[in-house]
Amino acid sequence: MTEATTETEDEHRPAENHEATVLLERARAEVDPVLRAVIGSLPGPLRRIARYHFGWEHADGTPATGGSGKAIRPALVLAAASALGGPAARATAVRAAAAVELVHNFTLLHDDVMDRDTTRRHRPTAWTVFGDADAILAGDALHALALRLLAQDAHPSAPAAVARLADCVVELCAGQQVDTAMEGRAPDEVTLDETLSMAEAKTGALLGCACALGALYADAGAADVAALDAFGREAGLAFQLIDDVIGIWGDPHRTGKPAGADLAARKKSLPVVAALTSGTPAASELAALYAAPHAEEDLERIALTVERAGGRDWAQAQAADRMARAMQELARAVPDPEAAGGLLALAEFVTRRTT
Amino acid sequence: MTEATTETEDEHRPAENHEATVLLERARAEVDPVLRAVIGSLPGPLRRIARYHFGWEHADGTPATGGSGKAIRPALVLAAASALGGPAARATAVRAAAAVELVHNFTLLHDDVMDRDTTRRHRPTAWTVFGDADAILAGDALHALALRLLAQDAHPSAPAAVARLADCVVELCAGQQVDTAMEGRAPDEVTLDETLSMAEAKTGALLGCACALGALYADAGAADVAALDAFGREAGLAFQLIDDVIGIWGDPHRTGKPAGADLAARKKSLPVVAALTSGTPAASELAALYAAPHAEEDLERIALTVERAGGRDWAQAQAADRMARAMQELARAVPDPEAAGGLLALAEFVTRRTT
Repeated sequence: MTEATTETEDEHRPAENHEATVLLERARAEVDPVLRAVIGSLPGPLRRIARYHFGWEHADGTPATGGSGKAIRPALVLAAASALGGPAARATAVRAAAAVELVHNFTLLHDDVMDRDTTRRHRPTAWTVFGDADAILAGDALHALALRLLAQDAHPSAPAAVARLADCVVELCAGQQVDTAMEGRAPDEVTLDETLSMAEAKTGALLGCACALGALYADAGAADVAALDAFGREAGLAFQLIDDVIGIWGDPHRTGKPAGADLAARKKSLPVVAALTSGTPAASELAALYAAPHAEEDLERIALTVERAGGRDWAQAQAADRMARAMQELARAVPDPEAAGGLLALAEFVTRRTT
Repeated sequence: MTEATTETEDEHRPAENHEATVLLERARAEVDPVLRAVIGSLPGPLRRIARYHFGWEHADGTPATGGSGKAIRPALVLAAASALGGPAARATAVRAAAAVELVHNFTLLHDDVMDRDTTRRHRPTAWTVFGDADAILAGDALHALALRLLAQDAHPSAPAAVARLADCVVELCAGQQVDTAMEGRAPDEVTLDETLSMAEAKTGALLGCACALGALYADAGAADVAALDAFGREAGLAFQLIDDVIGIWGDPHRTGKPAGADLAARKKSLPVVAALTSGTPAASELAALYAAPHAEEDLERIALTVERAGGRDWAQAQAADRMARAMQELARAVPDPEAAGGLLALAEFVTRRTT
């Protein structure tokens, strides 16, 4: 599996989810100065790698205007703080939002090294440009900056937020560990439950943590923090399911990745594992195709076999189910639809229910 | 260069530095339960990798009694707290001591991956046993645990300590970045000043940070914190200089590494760079030897050439000079020799002035 890449898509989105677009742009505008300041504090070579990774510089150090991602996680922090504590809480949570974005990018730098992924946000990944060591070290530095930023915050919730973000890092690492271990296993040794758990750890955990941090900064009680965490997790899993569908059947111009790359790499993404474990005749056919040596010309046939084995339908139904659960959790913590609107718009944005 | 490996040496030390031995054993006894508890909180596979790395388990998960290092950094945290704040301050600093040890081990896990080092503390390195991805992820998890442990501490100095430890991580990464970049450069393109700066970042920074954290936990003023940081840095540089000497001329049974491994890998360690930049006839001879393909039988000749170019004498004189500076900084912050005794004993221990 590859982590959700929805944020790497084409910046030009339809107008249906205007609210999400505004929230994302506002989050990016508020968080970017904090990110640029802390990254500007890094020693020269590490700063250069980080600035390249964020899309602010080309490999030669000249300024770039590439996308540094959609700021979904920072927007979730700020929207959660706003939903539970209004504009005052939202204003206190900008550093926490930047910390979450730093953690996200630290894990991207490391995951790209481990997964040997060569493209991220339509550009060569940092390790392909600077080498493995530099990419690992830049990731380590962003990790330290993230926890430093939060720990230095004067907000009374900061210590709890650091603990939660550090726990989330451990969960992200555990998810990536299972993911890389699963890559080395035969397709028939992988269950759908463990693939879902892994996806929750790799993608759901940080979206949940983002929402939980926003709630903490709004001085919410434990039940509301837990509900917002669950909201983010379920939305994150929906996000990953849709992303895996796009990774097989999506338009490479929108995903920023070659068509069928996940299948070419024989990744055990959620639709693939659902198909493999479906007990259908197409499942056996798929297992044989996945066991065969990589052959570019087979990618369309593999995609069709995943679909015939029910992998695509399962993933779309699961995504809808996860989104419904996310909505339930959100309604529990934020019963006022007006206050919940921002989080709802962001969840719909990431799962593209409006497109 | 390779980071200081003194801690990997034979556990049986002469009795001359009894005070240091007692301080190290006491630090290990106090910090280990904290380390075992936080590492015990990790999810299964990450816990197993961490427990292997610390020498608590064999690769198959059965209990081991291998050394997990000498606890020099935790002992420095505790000794610094004690020197400036007595037993009460020392008692509050145990978590900070554990956090420093976690950071140290996180960087060892990552550095071993980048440097392709295969032996650590007389055992195969984690990446050789579990693979690169697992070693990187276990390192990331220890990093998160370290900052979490400190951030959750109720001590009023905890936020300042987190900031300092995170800054130190950035410096460690910057030092390792320069080190790996230098490996790819021609020997005549490397200056002694930048090699010393790199060694200070890679080894001095964390020993300085350990002492500074102890001072912070003793509620010391900024000048004393800075002096203890400088004490640790200078002692750390002395430590690295001596370690580099041992890396060339040391007994492999004591170092836990094959004889001449640093030379075989053409590492630009401090004595080597001093020799290469000495302007002597032996310097040119050494440059030619270092440019030639690796040949095991040449290692003795290379070692002799480094010595003839003055690399060994320079390193030993530098180490003595750095130790003198360390003593000055220590006397500034802790004028009472009785109170300073623990830190002094530890500094002498790491630089082996008593052996």
